Amino acid sequence: MSERRIVILTDGRTNPVNAKTAACVIRYKPEEVVALLDTTQPGKTSQELLGVGGAIPVVANLADAPGANTLLIGIAPSGGKLPPAWRKILLEAIDRGMNLVSGLHDFLSNDPEIAAAAAKRGVEIQDVRKNNERDVANRKNFREDCLRIHTVGQDCSVGKMLASVEIALALKARGYDAKFVATGQTGIMIEGDGCPVDCVVADFVNGAVEKLVLANQHHDILLIEGQGSLSHPRYSAVTLGLLHGCVPHGMILVYEAGRRNVLGMDYVPLAPLAKIVEVNEMMARLAMPSSRVIGVAMNSRLLSADEAEAERERVRRELGVPVCDVIRHGSGDMVDAILALRQELFPHLAAKAG
Amino acid sequence: MSERRIVILTDGRTNPVNAKTAACVIRYKPEEVVALLDTTQPGKTSQELLGVGGAIPVVANLADAPGANTLLIGIAPSGGKLPPAWRKILLEAIDRGMNLVSGLHDFLSNDPEIAAAAAKRGVEIQDVRKNNERDVANRKNFREDCLRIHTVGQDCSVGKMLASVEIALALKARGYDAKFVATGQTGIMIEGDGCPVDCVVADFVNGAVEKLVLANQHHDILLIEGQGSLSHPRYSAVTLGLLHGCVPHGMILVYEAGRRNVLGMDYVPLAPLAKIVEVNEMMARLAMPSSRVIGVAMNSRLLSADEAEAERERVRRELGVPVCDVIRHGSGDMVDAILALRQELFPHLAAKAG
Repeated sequence: MSERRIVILTDGRTNPVNAKTAACVIRYKPEEVVALLDTTQPGKTSQELLGVGGAIPVVANLADAPGANTLLIGIAPSGGKLPPAWRKILLEAIDRGMNLVSGLHDFLSNDPEIAAAAAKRGVEIQDVRKNNERDVANRKNFREDCLRIHTVGQDCSVGKMLASVEIALALKARGYDAKFVATGQTGIMIEGDGCPVDCVVADFVNGAVEKLVLANQHHDILLIEGQGSLSHPRYSAVTLGLLHGCVPHGMILVYEAGRRNVLGMDYVPLAPLAKIVEVNEMMARLAMPSSRVIGVAMNSRLLSADEAEAERERVRRELGVPVCDVIRHGSGDMVDAILALRQELFPHLAAKAG
Repeated sequence: MSERRIVILTDGRTNPVNAKTAACVIRYKPEEVVALLDTTQPGKTSQELLGVGGAIPVVANLADAPGANTLLIGIAPSGGKLPPAWRKILLEAIDRGMNLVSGLHDFLSNDPEIAAAAAKRGVEIQDVRKNNERDVANRKNFREDCLRIHTVGQDCSVGKMLASVEIALALKARGYDAKFVATGQTGIMIEGDGCPVDCVVADFVNGAVEKLVLANQHHDILLIEGQGSLSHPRYSAVTLGLLHGCVPHGMILVYEAGRRNVLGMDYVPLAPLAKIVEVNEMMARLAMPSSRVIGVAMNSRLLSADEAEAERERVRRELGVPVCDVIRHGSGDMVDAILALRQELFPHLAAKAG
């Protein structure tokens, strides 16, 4: 494939919560991103609006990013539908010869108008969530000493993907053969492989996740990206399918400090962290009796440095496991917890450097 | 629609476990069933092979059921695929002008050969699992005093649908406005409405179930059919989506006495009943703190009358709730438990007869 030069479409929604996909692609693939497209905030930078991406500009028109060859949809809305006003922009991108990359549930390649325009102009549509998973789980053939670590959450959009990527990178930096296993559209866009589990037919979620683990267990340590929360009113089915498909040895709990209610459902209070630990351990142990939460990746975006330290200490005391913000503090505490678990479960590997 | 005269296809699998769909359709719609098609056991009766259906004959050829106008696939295999050898039979049925009814995951209407033959011959294909659910749950607008009862299980194929149907019938017989809410292909075939939740895209399972509840809550008591088990290695995602989509006031645990391992996975032991109660209550209470298991519907098919009594007493003592086999003992104990819960939760309704 020729080099991608991406414009990320976040029109009217260029903020860290709504434009989560954009922010993550920019964080891990900045060299591929030419501009953000937001007609409401032209002239600003990615750094100003998303906290990442430095001087990557926000433009109001595709014509202002003339070298771009790809338009990537930078949001992941609840329900996964295309905002109606964006259709015009997609058709214009096609007309300019740009390929489309989308993680929406509404597949662009199934949209008659968009698909016809793309075919006529000879551009490609990549629907990251499209899949035809049809295998059930068998809970067989897991490699004995491949360590499976799964990020679980108090809510959606707390940073499970980010924590998984950062911890995998930190393990690799220490010389371990670690792999980030992507299970959502943004993770797949970054990693280049994975499975969009939230778009798999319900009977086959556990099986799709298991297949993904089996395909990656030649690596020594897997960081399997979590989705949603076991307590999420909307997405708990996805979350449990993931947990029972990957059968983790250890879990890392991810949450956003200061969030009180379910994102997008402000009338539903979040379950307390201790309850989230309890339900995840109980459900994981149905498959693996020794499974436990070994650390907490706190997202302290909303806190000052002092507040973050106080929160970190409070949660450390409450849950009795290491706590860190992988961006603010680095991933060292989580890496140490993972390596300690590996030594405990696979002592014959302890002497090995990698 | 003109009257259905059904041949149920169960070739080589006419037993109560593999031909669960057939057995249930025959139990509740015997007047529509002309014959079972099984080339390996012609001349036998439905009663002999499935324990229901009296003299409904087993035939070896469609030609032996000349009045039939519908062929119904009578199995629900793991993975939901069409047995390859059955294709010839389906094409012959189409050729004879019969409509097809299927609950497989592999939609017959998407099969080029079968769809083309059906279109040419002018017969209909009903894929019961086909759906386009795209709504997330909102956990809003539940009717205050519509009682939601959900059957939960230790495993697949233990009798959750049967218990739900029987209890709804028994409540209706006592004058209550009860409704069986079907969530699987067989239940939908019997009830005529419902949602095939195991074939919904994972992100929308909770939402599809919630929508189904909202559409039925003009009834006073809902018996919402469960699927799988929270402990099932393959299908737990479906099970939790159901639980969190319907937010039950009370649950009825269904199990098959004598079963030791997960059906079709004889290397995976079943979780004990007390554990199944514990995980269902913990997960249900994330949404509804008072939710609890109020009774056990035991499937004692494999036991003698004496064994069934002993088992019933043992489980009653262990779990502290009423226990009965809705076929062997009738549904009275479950009906009483439901009405007691209704009186407890909605005391203002207690005086009403219906």
